[in-house]
Amino acid sequence: MGPPACVLQTLAKNLEAVRRYPDPSNLELKRSLADYLGVEPDNLLIGNGATEIIYSLCFLLRPRSVLVPQPTFSEYARAAEAAGAQVLSCPLLPTQGFRLDIDAYCRLLEQADMAFLCNPNNPTGNLLSYATLYHIWQESRRRGVWLIVDESFIDFVENWPELSLARVAAGEEKLIVLRSLTKFFALPGLRLGAGIAAPRVIKYVEARCDPWRVNILAQLAGAVALKDKEFQARTWKWLKAEKAYLFEGLASLPGFYPHSSEANFILVDMSLSGWGSAELTETLARQKVLVRDCSNFPGLKGEYVRVAVKEREANAVLLKLLRKLFTGE
Amino acid sequence: MGPPACVLQTLAKNLEAVRRYPDPSNLELKRSLADYLGVEPDNLLIGNGATEIIYSLCFLLRPRSVLVPQPTFSEYARAAEAAGAQVLSCPLLPTQGFRLDIDAYCRLLEQADMAFLCNPNNPTGNLLSYATLYHIWQESRRRGVWLIVDESFIDFVENWPELSLARVAAGEEKLIVLRSLTKFFALPGLRLGAGIAAPRVIKYVEARCDPWRVNILAQLAGAVALKDKEFQARTWKWLKAEKAYLFEGLASLPGFYPHSSEANFILVDMSLSGWGSAELTETLARQKVLVRDCSNFPGLKGEYVRVAVKEREANAVLLKLLRKLFTGE
Repeated sequence: MGPPACVLQTLAKNLEAVRRYPDPSNLELKRSLADYLGVEPDNLLIGNGATEIIYSLCFLLRPRSVLVPQPTFSEYARAAEAAGAQVLSCPLLPTQGFRLDIDAYCRLLEQADMAFLCNPNNPTGNLLSYATLYHIWQESRRRGVWLIVDESFIDFVENWPELSLARVAAGEEKLIVLRSLTKFFALPGLRLGAGIAAPRVIKYVEARCDPWRVNILAQLAGAVALKDKEFQARTWKWLKAEKAYLFEGLASLPGFYPHSSEANFILVDMSLSGWGSAELTETLARQKVLVRDCSNFPGLKGEYVRVAVKEREANAVLLKLLRKLFTGE
Repeated sequence: MGPPACVLQTLAKNLEAVRRYPDPSNLELKRSLADYLGVEPDNLLIGNGATEIIYSLCFLLRPRSVLVPQPTFSEYARAAEAAGAQVLSCPLLPTQGFRLDIDAYCRLLEQADMAFLCNPNNPTGNLLSYATLYHIWQESRRRGVWLIVDESFIDFVENWPELSLARVAAGEEKLIVLRSLTKFFALPGLRLGAGIAAPRVIKYVEARCDPWRVNILAQLAGAVALKDKEFQARTWKWLKAEKAYLFEGLASLPGFYPHSSEANFILVDMSLSGWGSAELTETLARQKVLVRDCSNFPGLKGEYVRVAVKEREANAVLLKLLRKLFTGE
């Protein structure tokens, strides 16, 4: 979809702003994001992308052991290790549709100081129900574990306000929700993410962070993007139609098993296709089509690729290429 | 001066780039900066501003005690404390023109794991000679202390290549030089800084950092700004003329003692003016003129303001206002 038109217009009009320092309090953006999420501005920590916040939390909260489901976004384990923590893995099994084993996860909480959950999960696209999440939060709270719920892809789910833990995090210690503004609003080059937590937690982290970490163009872009309700409605409509089209196309290929996804990507099991994921990724790249080889996600070996849902034309090009490769048509 | 025109043109032409992730290897920018500094691309760590690198180094190198001259840029001590280190201060005394007491600094190195030096120093504008710096580096190396030399303002010194430790840092362990691209090139809103060190040190830090921390517009802007030799020559010419004009104007005011500076700002001792620095800062702000009240720099009490060198018109407005306040003219 690309970024909302209002964002590109705002950037074009405000390029001269690069000569000013960004506002260290992120006031304008916090107000806009607080409205969007239904929390207060003092519940918000703004980061140079959600990933920057993941690193800050690991360095500042200094966990000794961090629980991470696998496969998931690789930066949780990488940040935990960079901060000197041990990583505890909770495997998500293909034979169980990559569903989180809630009991196993809660048992592992006993040994952790901090625990990550990605909802919907990257790269599987699985979404946890609010009831399940709330149960996990009760269990982690009881054990005094920091629970970090990364909702970077949740804006793609139309009823996300019913599924998000953001408003719970606003009033609780030891629960932090992460959001990204660069995925749904298509601004990955600008870097913009947020953490939602109790004001006391926000103050603690802000007092120990680089004050100018969010660039001024990202601050301006975020504040206008969040108000563009028409862009949001259009994105949901596009995603619903194109995800179904792409999913059906992938499912019709011999040896390809797309995994049902609540995000803007589809994980594809190609273990029975006769091809490895690296081989397919390279072959497609030579045709200027990029898919994500998932062989470096723990547990996915060389058997999965992750495919982004794009505009119809691009989706059709991918399906046509795959059809040619796997059916000769 | 504002950013180079070529930067604003590049940004305007490449706004659509925000829909792409930044290059985590910063390849283009590293090549451009390596040329500028006379080092190799693998000697460079690119950061979301120099301040971000200060925090990363404190969190990743985990010093227990950090030596910091005072007064200086406040983020060295803040980052050290955020990372759990103790801060050792080496006072710079007004009675000695804020000159670094080399012997005292080297003695304090005995108790430190990491030591900062800002050259030229913020907010005093004092510049250390290459011989002095090299001597300090020999002393810190002998003691196994990490020496971090922040050269964020050194580009304002026309013969900086003769004064910088960047090329020494490229071949040594435990010496890291920091540079900023947002001060000389007037891009503070975009955030862009760099560290220069041995390739082994760069690899260690990069393996433990957020891979997407530098936004794509900063990457593009930095790569073109560094090649604009005409902007550099124009900046030196402007600074020489306007710093002299501003310095003389300040020195002519009763009770105002500007401190000679090698950077693009002037520290002013106003202890004999009869005004406090907070009072003056507020009075000027009401006239839409902003100076930096230095009362929160250790050792500067309420007796100093820092004044930026601007274009002639703005410098004249400041001097006129001060003249009116302090001489009634």
